[in-house]
Amino acid sequence: MALKRYVILAEAAFDEEAKTATGVMRYAESPTVAVIDSTRAGTVAGDHVPGLESDVPVVAALADALAFEPTTLLVGVAPAGGKLPDAYRRAIIDALGNGLDVESGLHDFLGDDPELGAAAGRAGREIRDLRRAPRGLNVPTGANLAVPTHTVLTVGSDCALGKMTVCLELDAEAKRRGLASVFVPTGQTGIAIAGWGIAVDEVISDYVAGAAERLVVEGHERGGDGAILWIEGQGSLNHPYYSGVTLGLLHGSAPHALVFVHEPGRETIDGDARYPIPGLGELIDDQVRMARHVRRAPVVAVALKTNRLDEDAARTAIAEVERDTALVADDPVRFGAGRLLDAVLSARG
Amino acid sequence: MALKRYVILAEAAFDEEAKTATGVMRYAESPTVAVIDSTRAGTVAGDHVPGLESDVPVVAALADALAFEPTTLLVGVAPAGGKLPDAYRRAIIDALGNGLDVESGLHDFLGDDPELGAAAGRAGREIRDLRRAPRGLNVPTGANLAVPTHTVLTVGSDCALGKMTVCLELDAEAKRRGLASVFVPTGQTGIAIAGWGIAVDEVISDYVAGAAERLVVEGHERGGDGAILWIEGQGSLNHPYYSGVTLGLLHGSAPHALVFVHEPGRETIDGDARYPIPGLGELIDDQVRMARHVRRAPVVAVALKTNRLDEDAARTAIAEVERDTALVADDPVRFGAGRLLDAVLSARG
Repeated sequence: MALKRYVILAEAAFDEEAKTATGVMRYAESPTVAVIDSTRAGTVAGDHVPGLESDVPVVAALADALAFEPTTLLVGVAPAGGKLPDAYRRAIIDALGNGLDVESGLHDFLGDDPELGAAAGRAGREIRDLRRAPRGLNVPTGANLAVPTHTVLTVGSDCALGKMTVCLELDAEAKRRGLASVFVPTGQTGIAIAGWGIAVDEVISDYVAGAAERLVVEGHERGGDGAILWIEGQGSLNHPYYSGVTLGLLHGSAPHALVFVHEPGRETIDGDARYPIPGLGELIDDQVRMARHVRRAPVVAVALKTNRLDEDAARTAIAEVERDTALVADDPVRFGAGRLLDAVLSARG
Repeated sequence: MALKRYVILAEAAFDEEAKTATGVMRYAESPTVAVIDSTRAGTVAGDHVPGLESDVPVVAALADALAFEPTTLLVGVAPAGGKLPDAYRRAIIDALGNGLDVESGLHDFLGDDPELGAAAGRAGREIRDLRRAPRGLNVPTGANLAVPTHTVLTVGSDCALGKMTVCLELDAEAKRRGLASVFVPTGQTGIAIAGWGIAVDEVISDYVAGAAERLVVEGHERGGDGAILWIEGQGSLNHPYYSGVTLGLLHGSAPHALVFVHEPGRETIDGDARYPIPGLGELIDDQVRMARHVRRAPVVAVALKTNRLDEDAARTAIAEVERDTALVADDPVRFGAGRLLDAVLSARG
């Protein structure tokens, strides 16, 4: 597959919250050649995101990015309020007119917008809405039970914990060791990074497990017999907004093992203090209980998000979780994914 | 609300499997005046469905039903194979041309069919696709936690157990006792029966909990403070196809209590022998464990589907479940919903 060259549209929003933008810059095989954010023009990407070592230029407008020969405009942040602002619309039309394709992870599909659709048609370029569900989905067939892979799903105590990142780090570490390994994307950022996948939260709820099954089948086609599939988790069983997506993904992907993701010190779910996060032991039991209806799958390791702790506090938190859960725990971004991968491989036997 | 007069289209399919047709005939306030099934023309509805005492005529075609002055054609069965057969298409166009509205619970929306849409436009009649999700859904707001009702959700060990019927029987019994009580529909048959609701399995999975929350809020508007809301359950937590819908509905409706529905003797899930049904005690624990992330909700009674057992065997099965679970159990269709309602009210305190 020929690599793309991304210019990322992140107008007035290029910071560490721009998850699709920074995810693609960190993990996609295709390079990012420029970022559009007029409020940060003249700087480099690494100035705005802790830990992102990048000298990719931030420019004011599409015209300034063309010198870097981009092939694809990626809409890297959702504009506040949902409606597409004029600045976005102008940049998208400019990009199409300059021969670029456009990729978008927005809830509202750009391809359905008459003006943008017409611009793409005139330019003979493509608008790819990464969240758009494929046709022909249905309930699972049971094919998920017969796929000859080692399928690992990330679950956790909340959303916004880095379940995708944990999968990507484990996948990279497995590949470094020469193992057949496939990252299986289930959300728009993962799809932008890997170039395939299904945004399972956009699928009608009747078919969410069927969509997950299809991803496992396709992961096997990509990785072959015996490959490790790292299924990007979504939400959590205890998250009152997204738990349906989580359980459909758990049952549809029929994992052999689970990696539990948590942020030490987080006491209530992301953005809603009405919902306390239960203890880790209890939550780990929840995952195993729910998984068993399809396949007995143990939690084999705990991945921790420790970026808000200093290094000593991070190591202490990891040691505490290891003691409390009797599982290997680590922060794969900060300290490498080696120990977590060892735990996954050792539990596979 | 003026009553409708239904003619139900159930071509070549009017038997006990025609769940929307028989559900509406049993429970809807609006009467059914005729059933269209040319293979059974000249009989009455009660001839084909055990326990349905009905002398509604079965006729060969729409023309034969007009004498009974229907106002609304209800597409009462999904045709095999998904594609709309010509006989259905003809009957729908005939109905619109004769001044009837059309209601459909099919997955494929009739209103999106150009020929049918045009026919409705010409006739000035309405096509209502009962499964079509309303606009403006989103994740829950937390309003579900503050609704001053007593909210009861039916859950169970499988799909196709009669969770809707259990709700309808409990609602009818509560109304007989003069209690403020609302049946809250979450699927197409329930919507056809009650004339409102959302088919939650047709909502994108990100918003299934938000749709359930909206239904609880609307149930309160209909029933008032202190009303009992009977939320129609969908699927089951252990059902690998539909568990995501089930958990989203559980968390989004935020019930105060659960009624668990089961068929004694059913050992594997409906239509798929790969998935054994665990023991009742274990499954009841699953519901309570998952509910607690939003609100602590006990299982307060067990409703049993015993229609395949003779009366003695049914009474024995009920006694066994009562002994095993220490909960009141009964078959509300066969023996009345009184004891189950007593259990719900007594647990409410």
